[in-house]
Amino acid sequence: MNNLKGAAILGQSGGPTSVINASAAGVFIEALKQPNITHVYGAIHGIRGILNEEFYDINQEDLKELELLKTTPSSEIGSVRHKLKPLDQDDSEYRRLLEVFKKYNIRYFFYNGGNDSMDTCNKISKFFKDSGWECFCMGVPKTIDNDLVITDHCPGYASAAKYVATTMMELYKDASVYDTPMITVVEVMGRNAGWLTAASALASYKGLGPDLIYLPEITFDLDKFYSDVEEVLKRRNGKCLIAVSEGVKDKDGHYIPETFATLDKDSFGHSQLGGTATILANELKKRFNTKVRGIEFSLMQRCGQHLASKVDVTEAYQAGVRAVKAAVSGKTDYMIGFKREMKNGKYHCKYILVPLHEVANAEKKVPLEWIINNGTMLSEEYVKYALPLIQGDCKAPLEDGLPRFARLKKVLVNK
Amino acid sequence: MNNLKGAAILGQSGGPTSVINASAAGVFIEALKQPNITHVYGAIHGIRGILNEEFYDINQEDLKELELLKTTPSSEIGSVRHKLKPLDQDDSEYRRLLEVFKKYNIRYFFYNGGNDSMDTCNKISKFFKDSGWECFCMGVPKTIDNDLVITDHCPGYASAAKYVATTMMELYKDASVYDTPMITVVEVMGRNAGWLTAASALASYKGLGPDLIYLPEITFDLDKFYSDVEEVLKRRNGKCLIAVSEGVKDKDGHYIPETFATLDKDSFGHSQLGGTATILANELKKRFNTKVRGIEFSLMQRCGQHLASKVDVTEAYQAGVRAVKAAVSGKTDYMIGFKREMKNGKYHCKYILVPLHEVANAEKKVPLEWIINNGTMLSEEYVKYALPLIQGDCKAPLEDGLPRFARLKKVLVNK
Repeated sequence: MNNLKGAAILGQSGGPTSVINASAAGVFIEALKQPNITHVYGAIHGIRGILNEEFYDINQEDLKELELLKTTPSSEIGSVRHKLKPLDQDDSEYRRLLEVFKKYNIRYFFYNGGNDSMDTCNKISKFFKDSGWECFCMGVPKTIDNDLVITDHCPGYASAAKYVATTMMELYKDASVYDTPMITVVEVMGRNAGWLTAASALASYKGLGPDLIYLPEITFDLDKFYSDVEEVLKRRNGKCLIAVSEGVKDKDGHYIPETFATLDKDSFGHSQLGGTATILANELKKRFNTKVRGIEFSLMQRCGQHLASKVDVTEAYQAGVRAVKAAVSGKTDYMIGFKREMKNGKYHCKYILVPLHEVANAEKKVPLEWIINNGTMLSEEYVKYALPLIQGDCKAPLEDGLPRFARLKKVLVNK
Repeated sequence: MNNLKGAAILGQSGGPTSVINASAAGVFIEALKQPNITHVYGAIHGIRGILNEEFYDINQEDLKELELLKTTPSSEIGSVRHKLKPLDQDDSEYRRLLEVFKKYNIRYFFYNGGNDSMDTCNKISKFFKDSGWECFCMGVPKTIDNDLVITDHCPGYASAAKYVATTMMELYKDASVYDTPMITVVEVMGRNAGWLTAASALASYKGLGPDLIYLPEITFDLDKFYSDVEEVLKRRNGKCLIAVSEGVKDKDGHYIPETFATLDKDSFGHSQLGGTATILANELKKRFNTKVRGIEFSLMQRCGQHLASKVDVTEAYQAGVRAVKAAVSGKTDYMIGFKREMKNGKYHCKYILVPLHEVANAEKKVPLEWIINNGTMLSEEYVKYALPLIQGDCKAPLEDGLPRFARLKKVLVNK
């Protein structure tokens, strides 16, 4: 336990998830309990809110509404995509941050995001240290991409994975309804790592999922893709369900829309609308002369709180709680990580401290040995990895049959 | 009660819903109980299964799995889009149906679908009557479009509406996460009637829904659309959430993709990919030079069983049960309809019999007086109409954190 009294602030950064607010709830509720934390702030739109001195006064919120944050999707205090310049190039923003921290006597800083955000948190922490401002800086992980290193998995991933697997099962059912041929191509988020697309394999192992799954970890070859599809169509009587990551790239490193922008010589400079699924669906239609549907899970996969995993919500909340506890106990420059422990064959999550510099800007991909069937399916190892994470439901309470999300007062702190 | 002993068969037709299997469960479970019903069949892919003598033997199914049909999306026995030719043009299919009915002594015929299917049911019933084959024919309604006349609403609508409203609330949250301008255009199903798109207004009345809602009931004017959006962007600090029916048409009766195929003179015959949302999103991007996202709810809105309304599942099941009870009591040529009754301010559904010929091929649209704000929002009358229908949850039980859908044995009947 350290004895430094001061205010705490939480900022959030990057794309939201179904459970990023659960982590905020963890930070806020735990921070409000801590005697050494004199005030709790929520930075509006992450680091930008701190630079602009735009905070919500969390002390004025009702506990009941803070609890409801656990089941409110997206980022209630607002997120941002803002990368600090390297300190040796431009230190103006760092100095501004320090000024604001001093003004409000902020001694506990929590930053909730992916690997970029962990880098930001790390940079700020270093600058404060060098400037002699004692401040405990902790990272709280978040990303549907599941691509942070060292931690077993990331808050936000399991709920998005549950959305992908459940919806794939429903789509499989829907795509089987007619006795006519039908190809369905579903695009899943993930620019570099295929974790979320991999989750569609959970549906395949239930017998109600994609026949073919393409991750960005494997180079995407169009000709192989067509012959993969052809083989499935023969075997499955004209039906084929495909999951493809938005991040698949050809041998030259081009995403599908880029590939086609190049290939499509007749287009006279017209850029085709639509993403990977739409473009592939269109090509398959031409090639196989069959009904094809391109579907994009779009933002629904990251904000589908109604399909949140209970394990995920619990862990996301605990990540926030543990970050506060670690900071007040004197820890700094760590991210809360998850370590998987199996006790009597049952999954158990142990919360660990991961040095920020080890996660900053690093990226964890799906192990290549988990990608089987000539790059079109995930192995049972993946299923064993993912299944414990998607257990249980944890959706918002209903009001008039619709989700009752948190309603914060959002009282602005006077500058 | 009539005394005619014979077999019963159920066929399903048209696009599936989250609860069409619930109606099948109602027909099957009730039919298996009826002493006058000697055998229960499920026609594989609707009328085509009858023509081809391809049935599942429902007597061989476990009751537990039939119960699970209540929470299994899509059509487990398969659906079809097959319109019988007018009798005076070609009676061959009618004669074939009669032959099959006689072979299996089918005296109870249930057809589950929309207005086309009610027409089919009606035609078959008439032909049997004229041919002297005593058979009790009942329609069971189904459509996410909610466009059947006379009945207050249709099974399948409420669950799809709940999907649309809930997901809109989540998208609203997601679209609010950054402090940068952002337009989101969401396309909802419904070629002619705007009922399902209207459901997005339920989110708006919660303060977390579209700013602008466009139904096919109102002529879609591109210039007005742009100025509507511009006004919202000014008022809402660069944000705008739009729900648009796939069925909106310009003054010449063209759908959006057709309109742009005509407008886009430079395209050299290239047809643009994507539907209404993608195209509108692209146009808005050009016009307002801001971030725009086009989203299609696609098949998810009709197969999203995990967001099924309990009221809908119950009513869909009861529609099946009541159809069987009506048939064995000697009724024929009716569809089960719903009549809304308010008892002490509480919604109550009364099951009624609607003559098939009155629903066949007719279409009910959203009342124009419910469309307000110069054609961009729904009135409170709509909210009062829709809210009681989306109450309660009724999702499939979980197995490994994923839905456990019905697993029928699907024993084929020997020809």
